[in-house]
Amino acid sequence: MISMSSKPMISRMGASVPDKIWVQGRDLCTDLLGKIGFAEMTWLELTGALPTPEQTALLEAMLLTLVEHGATPMAIATRLTYLGAPEALQGAVAAGLLGMGTAFAGTAEGAAKMLYAALKDAPADEDLEIIARRVVDRELGAKRPIFGIGHNLHKPIDPRTPVLFSIAEKQGYNGRYVALIEAIATAAEARTGKSMPVNATGAIGALCCELGLDWRLCRGLAVIGRAVGLVGHIAEELRTPIAKQIWMRTEEEIARSVALADQQMERGA
Amino acid sequence: MISMSSKPMISRMGASVPDKIWVQGRDLCTDLLGKIGFAEMTWLELTGALPTPEQTALLEAMLLTLVEHGATPMAIATRLTYLGAPEALQGAVAAGLLGMGTAFAGTAEGAAKMLYAALKDAPADEDLEIIARRVVDRELGAKRPIFGIGHNLHKPIDPRTPVLFSIAEKQGYNGRYVALIEAIATAAEARTGKSMPVNATGAIGALCCELGLDWRLCRGLAVIGRAVGLVGHIAEELRTPIAKQIWMRTEEEIARSVALADQQMERGA
Amino acid sequence: MISMSSKPMISRMGASVPDKIWVQGRDLCTDLLGKIGFAEMTWLELTGALPTPEQTALLEAMLLTLVEHGATPMAIATRLTYLGAPEALQGAVAAGLLGMGTAFAGTAEGAAKMLYAALKDAPADEDLEIIARRVVDRELGAKRPIFGIGHNLHKPIDPRTPVLFSIAEKQGYNGRYVALIEAIATAAEARTGKSMPVNATGAIGALCCELGLDWRLCRGLAVIGRAVGLVGHIAEELRTPIAKQIWMRTEEEIARSVALADQQMERGA
Amino acid sequence: MISMSSKPMISRMGASVPDKIWVQGRDLCTDLLGKIGFAEMTWLELTGALPTPEQTALLEAMLLTLVEHGATPMAIATRLTYLGAPEALQGAVAAGLLGMGTAFAGTAEGAAKMLYAALKDAPADEDLEIIARRVVDRELGAKRPIFGIGHNLHKPIDPRTPVLFSIAEKQGYNGRYVALIEAIATAAEARTGKSMPVNATGAIGALCCELGLDWRLCRGLAVIGRAVGLVGHIAEELRTPIAKQIWMRTEEEIARSVALADQQMERGA
Repeated sequence: MISMSSKPMISRMGASVPDKIWVQGRDLCTDLLGKIGFAEMTWLELTGALPTPEQTALLEAMLLTLVEHGATPMAIATRLTYLGAPEALQGAVAAGLLGMGTAFAGTAEGAAKMLYAALKDAPADEDLEIIARRVVDRELGAKRPIFGIGHNLHKPIDPRTPVLFSIAEKQGYNGRYVALIEAIATAAEARTGKSMPVNATGAIGALCCELGLDWRLCRGLAVIGRAVGLVGHIAEELRTPIAKQIWMRTEEEIARSVALADQQMERGA
Repeated sequence: MISMSSKPMISRMGASVPDKIWVQGRDLCTDLLGKIGFAEMTWLELTGALPTPEQTALLEAMLLTLVEHGATPMAIATRLTYLGAPEALQGAVAAGLLGMGTAFAGTAEGAAKMLYAALKDAPADEDLEIIARRVVDRELGAKRPIFGIGHNLHKPIDPRTPVLFSIAEKQGYNGRYVALIEAIATAAEARTGKSMPVNATGAIGALCCELGLDWRLCRGLAVIGRAVGLVGHIAEELRTPIAKQIWMRTEEEIARSVALADQQMERGA
Repeated sequence: MISMSSKPMISRMGASVPDKIWVQGRDLCTDLLGKIGFAEMTWLELTGALPTPEQTALLEAMLLTLVEHGATPMAIATRLTYLGAPEALQGAVAAGLLGMGTAFAGTAEGAAKMLYAALKDAPADEDLEIIARRVVDRELGAKRPIFGIGHNLHKPIDPRTPVLFSIAEKQGYNGRYVALIEAIATAAEARTGKSMPVNATGAIGALCCELGLDWRLCRGLAVIGRAVGLVGHIAEELRTPIAKQIWMRTEEEIARSVALADQQMERGA
Repeated sequence: MISMSSKPMISRMGASVPDKIWVQGRDLCTDLLGKIGFAEMTWLELTGALPTPEQTALLEAMLLTLVEHGATPMAIATRLTYLGAPEALQGAVAAGLLGMGTAFAGTAEGAAKMLYAALKDAPADEDLEIIARRVVDRELGAKRPIFGIGHNLHKPIDPRTPVLFSIAEKQGYNGRYVALIEAIATAAEARTGKSMPVNATGAIGALCCELGLDWRLCRGLAVIGRAVGLVGHIAEELRTPIAKQIWMRTEEEIARSVALADQQMERGA
């Protein structure tokens, strides 16, 4: 074990003395409370600086898109966990957040990482369509899905994408990353002959790049948005509970399926 | 096992068809994106309705207060978890949220529950000072701390409380719950002779009551705010990491303390 | 903030040098691996000492009882979380564990706490039946359920309880705590006229007391046992997946219920 | 959304009627309690079948190895979380488990996956040394670490590996996977000229293969073992708490480092 005692340990997130509290070097009581909104606070936490109105508008649209998707596996996990531990609401939200892995939410960060890498590796003046075709050929050639492209339900377009990109345009953030992911979608449709729209997570990944955020924080935005949504599901569960029914129906259905399978096996024997 | 298959299973959080997405019965793309902010979306998720500007202003101040408290046990847990599982950011945030239990964050909900109960149980025209004294006598008589009253560091007042209550006043939400918790603080100081200010969680609990939110959702607001803060800590950890040092210093210190204790035991023997 | 730098920080859980690893002061490679079983290791971790064969036998029966309960809310939450984040199995198990709150698993610790307190507060020679009646009168008088007594499904007795108590008897651990919880069940049946058996968590709570374990560790035993069960559910999910169906059926059922409710509302209007 | 209502939903983990409880098709009360140990129950949960004594002995050694590693980031996260939410022990254990990601615990599953693939892809009679060199050349050529090979502290050998492999030999489980990972270590040392022992997670990965367990369940074994260890840390925290000190020292050290950095910046200006 090497001693690390001599290395400084710097963190500038927050500090407090009896009559003052600082957040990111700003006085919470005089400079933030009543002065900025929740999305601006989110930006401040992520970057250490306050956002411009344009950055705020874009971040709000991104966060709003990530809040609510109905009775997803995450929302169901939150409700079932709340059923067992209503005294620990934080655990129910945590349980839901834990489902935000590669299958559902990894695509925004995957898209952002892919877009950052594609523009970093390409000559500065290279045509975006050529870059896009190279990405599509590489991914589809390796039989990998392309992050942020395509959707099971939302076809031929994901209705959130044009709205997000139109807000980005209005705020002056429709730059090369947005153009590139649109070119990737076009190239993917050309190569496959199938509907391959930029989906909402692809759009959010591209907007993370436009805002200059670390691609690893894309999932952080999703976690923040979804935390709001999962508390929302608990709020609805308090008004009109369904968790116990989900459990009971699952138990009933398993009992029915197993009994049926056992009967069939006996008959077959 | 009783069949629950005949009971309806109602949830109105969200729904989608190929070209449309609804959140709380509203069209996400046409009615929400670019139209409302993140705090308004939070209110919509919690209550099913859009907030007034006054409710939004108050909710934003409450959420902002809950975001960042520096290197708390929760923030350290998030950073240490991220060190072990950087590919699963959601797990690092979840780990941090799990520390939001009775020791640190339960007081807002405790305060809200106490305030709701105190006004519900009292005659409508009873003087708040009498109600407050009854609450203080009951809690201190049972040697229980009073939820939302007193602070280790922030003395003689918690600087956040007057700011939160001043915003509440400006927005027309400084009603009987705010007055009651202030009366409770006064009564507690009178009874103990010690500094017993309304702390920030007490203020937030009172404002939850003013807004008519279920007391069980107070912790939900704390979870939402802190989710932002914990992602912020990961963002800083990506720029200037400290988790490994916290770990190494802890291991070193334990080794040093154990060696010293063993020496002392040997000498004593 | 008071400096804590001068206080020693003692932990004797484990330590290592290049060619040796100690666990609880024992050499892992020479004294534990191949020498003791998994239940003995569990006892060693909980208490810092190795168990007797009798303690091991009792602990094994307690742990086994806690492993598997079929498609519980916890197991469903684990499977749904694994669906979203298969790359982070630890998160799926964590999500399931988070449902182990007061509604399902708090009763073992509640029973242990109640039993410890009842014998500690009573005169040493007081008759157990009198103590039991006092507990029952206090709890039922306050309209509280009695921890560890009664079961929705397992009536008139919980089949696990006599087996656990018979193992305890065989190992010489059927002492006053076991007798007391049986007396409490008898007193509760006498007072209510209903079937009120000692359930499995009540039995486990009593056995925790017999073993002298801190009542706060009862939930720890449940967490350990259930961790095994939840990994088991993931193993089955890998062989015969059902998580996606639980999700889809829930979404379908909600859509159906909401459509029906909307029709009825329209007809009513 | 495609209806999945017609698909059966099979799970055979557990079931119960008033007087009987089945786990994996076995009667818990008559066939398992008092009849099998905790490791056997673990195997039953993972595979649906009871283990042979040889499988049990091997599994016990693997599980024991995974339980305790001292004041790791996971253990610290558990203790800090317990400090904030002592009423929700399950959350504290969950928080610790969430750090079991790619950085520390992913290597056992990575090793198992690598070994399964290497033998599956190779001709049945190919020499293990040739297969090993191919693996090493591919991984080191791509500048990737080799899963399960090398250790920061335990050099030139990891003391757990020979013990685990000797138990495997005694139980008749020292087959081609064990031989292959040893050949990989030898080839890696030959190529790099550095000490590259099979570490404990590499050994466990190889033993998972010998036992025929799905490589994705390797992390499940680690989760089970570590759950025991984390409850152990809570047990010690109850006896001799250190969490608050870890927190306070971290806060103090950050304050000191930040003050020092600010002074240096001022002097530089």
